[in-house]
This record gives sequence, structure tokens and C-alpha cells, in this order.
Amino acid sequence: MAKALYPACIEDLITSFRNLPGIGKRTAERLALSVSAWECEEVTLFASRLQNLVDELKFCKECGNFSETDVCSICEDRVRRSNVICIVEQPAQVSAIEQSGIFRGLYHVLGGKLAPLDGIGPDQLNIDSLVSRVRKNPPEEIIIALSYDVEGEATASFLVEELRGCDVKVTRPATGIPLGTDITVADAGTLSAALNRRYTL
Amino acid sequence: MAKALYPACIEDLITSFRNLPGIGKRTAERLALSVSAWECEEVTLFASRLQNLVDELKFCKECGNFSETDVCSICEDRVRRSNVICIVEQPAQVSAIEQSGIFRGLYHVLGGKLAPLDGIGPDQLNIDSLVSRVRKNPPEEIIIALSYDVEGEATASFLVEELRGCDVKVTRPATGIPLGTDITVADAGTLSAALNRRYTL
Repeated sequence: MAKALYPACIEDLITSFRNLPGIGKRTAERLALSVSAWECEEVTLFASRLQNLVDELKFCKECGNFSETDVCSICEDRVRRSNVICIVEQPAQVSAIEQSGIFRGLYHVLGGKLAPLDGIGPDQLNIDSLVSRVRKNPPEEIIIALSYDVEGEATASFLVEELRGCDVKVTRPATGIPLGTDITVADAGTLSAALNRRYTL
Repeated sequence: MAKALYPACIEDLITSFRNLPGIGKRTAERLALSVSAWECEEVTLFASRLQNLVDELKFCKECGNFSETDVCSICEDRVRRSNVICIVEQPAQVSAIEQSGIFRGLYHVLGGKLAPLDGIGPDQLNIDSLVSRVRKNPPEEIIIALSYDVEGEATASFLVEELRGCDVKVTRPATGIPLGTDITVADAGTLSAALNRRYTL
């Protein structure tokens, strides 16, 4: 029988760290060992902060973004343009767009993308709330800012179908070569999209 | 006033993630956001595993390694050579050496290295227990397997002084070019050590 390398409480913690994105076996081990050398108070604080997430984190009932109140500060901001709704996967994308400062409309956080193989269908996403929101207060434009991968494209197509009855312009952000990079670093799909949608100077 | 990007419970969790080694601001943010999308049970499990570490993790009273019992399985293994003690900084190094399978002696885990500027003096490390252990059961050899940095070297010198009265051979693992690498990747110090201690074929 292979003997466990570490006591059970360390092995368990390694398992939890491995659930984090981009954290492999070796890194999880390194993180758990590092925590095992922390002061007790520091570890307890980390644990209670995780638990706080479960107890305190709320989502805006309007758009699905993080919120400390029933309706988030973005939805309640009367200065923002309510005639454009940007659809994103997670609150992280709201933060990314807000940090750019370029968008002054509202958001709708789906909570993920359609992924039937992982058991994520339309009912697991905030799609019903989007449709009823659009019906109640029809915006002029909906920007589908989902990622350009298979699930993102499938979800975008599904949303276009769902919104077909509503009189609203549906757009997606442009695809192409990222600024500051060389076209040699672009993959074939990106390059093809960039050439197909080339513009005249 | 700059508005916080995330609710307080997320910002707090980001702070805890940043205490982990090798985790910067962006990664901590990504990890905290990822946890915020986990199932509640999964987050609670993570929190309780951290707390378990505080409640359950014990250290061997003989060598200072992780242990589920008073004395760890390595110290209690009568097959191992008790006449060689390998001194390491943390339990992580015990695991690394055990995984190599090359060492069959005993260990002594210091719990760190001398770092006066960080308030880590001899009293913060398991040095007294090492000296009394060596006096009680004098081994033939003590291998100081501390890292080859300023604190590691200073700690090694300090240990040599502390052990001067004991009739024991004190050694350190060889320094030189790591296997599988080119000498061009070695820093000047390593290269110098490797050339000074060159061997005849």
C-alpha cells in the first residue's frame, strides 16, 4: 500500500486547492504546505473569509452581478444608459469591462455558458430573467459579450433565438487581431476573421 | 473616492489568496472569483479543511515533522538508520527527500531559517531540541540540507557552532550544476562552486 505523503488534513486541503483554476498537483501541494506554516489566526481568517462568501455574497436580482444590496449599484445608477444591455458570463467580465471605462450601459450576467455535456442547459443560466427583463423594458441594443469558443457561440445563437420576438438590435464585439500583437501570433481562426472583416483606410 | 471593484467579502478573500506564495494581485482576483462561482457546499468544505489544519495538524515531538501521532512514522521506523540525521527547513523538504527514496536516516525539521530582520532567531526554530536530541543519542553524521541562500548559510554556520561540543560529523549536500542542464544556465556562484569542486574522470 502506498503510504500517504502528508497527514490527512494536508491531503484534504491539497484536494481543495486543486479545484482552483490553473492550480495543478504540485502547486496545490506547495500552497497547502505554505498554509500549514502560517499562524493559526491567519488560517482561521482565511477559512472564515471563505465561509463569509457563502453567507454574505449576494447577486443583483436585476442583472445577476455581485451586489451588496438587492439591486446592484450599476443597475441603480440613473446616469447609465439603460437602452444598452451587455450580456456576459460571470461578474468577472463586468469588472473587466468596468475597468476599461468604455461602456456606460447595463449588464446581464448569465452565470455561465450552455454546456449540455456538463449538465448546463438554459435553466441553469439567467436566460429567463434576461428575456423577461427585455420584454418589460425593451433596450435598443443587446451586446452579447460571451467568449468566442464553441460554448460561447452556441449560447449566443441560443440567445438570438430567444430574443427573436423582441424588437432589439443584437450585436457582438468585433473579432480580430488584438492590439499590440503581431499577426503571426494570431491563430488561423482569428486571422481568417480579421482578413474577412478587413477595413479600408 | 475609488469605488471597490467587488463586494467586501470578495475583496477580503482576495487578500487571503494574496498571502499564498507566488500568487499576485491578478491571480488572487481570479481565484477568489472562481471560488465565488463554486457550489456553497464546496466552499464550506474548503473553509472547514483550512480550519482542520489549525485543529488537527500535529508535529512530531522528536523531529518536528508533520505527524498524526506524538512521534512520526519516520522516527518510529526501526528499520531506518538512526545514526544519520538530516536537517531541513520545513516538512515539505522531508517529503521531497522521501520521494527520492535515497535517504534512509532520520530528519530534524527546523521550522525555518535564521532571519533576524524578520524576527526569526534561534528561539523561533527547533534548535534546542536538535542539540538535546544529538546529546541524548549522538548520531555519526548530521547532514545540513538547508537551502544555499544567505539565511541558509547563516543558519548552517550557527548550527555548526551549536554542535561543536558534540562528537559528530557535520556535512552539507554538494553544490554544482543540476543534472540535465547546460552550464550556461548556471549562475556565476553555482558555476564557481562547480569548477572549484571539479572531479577527475
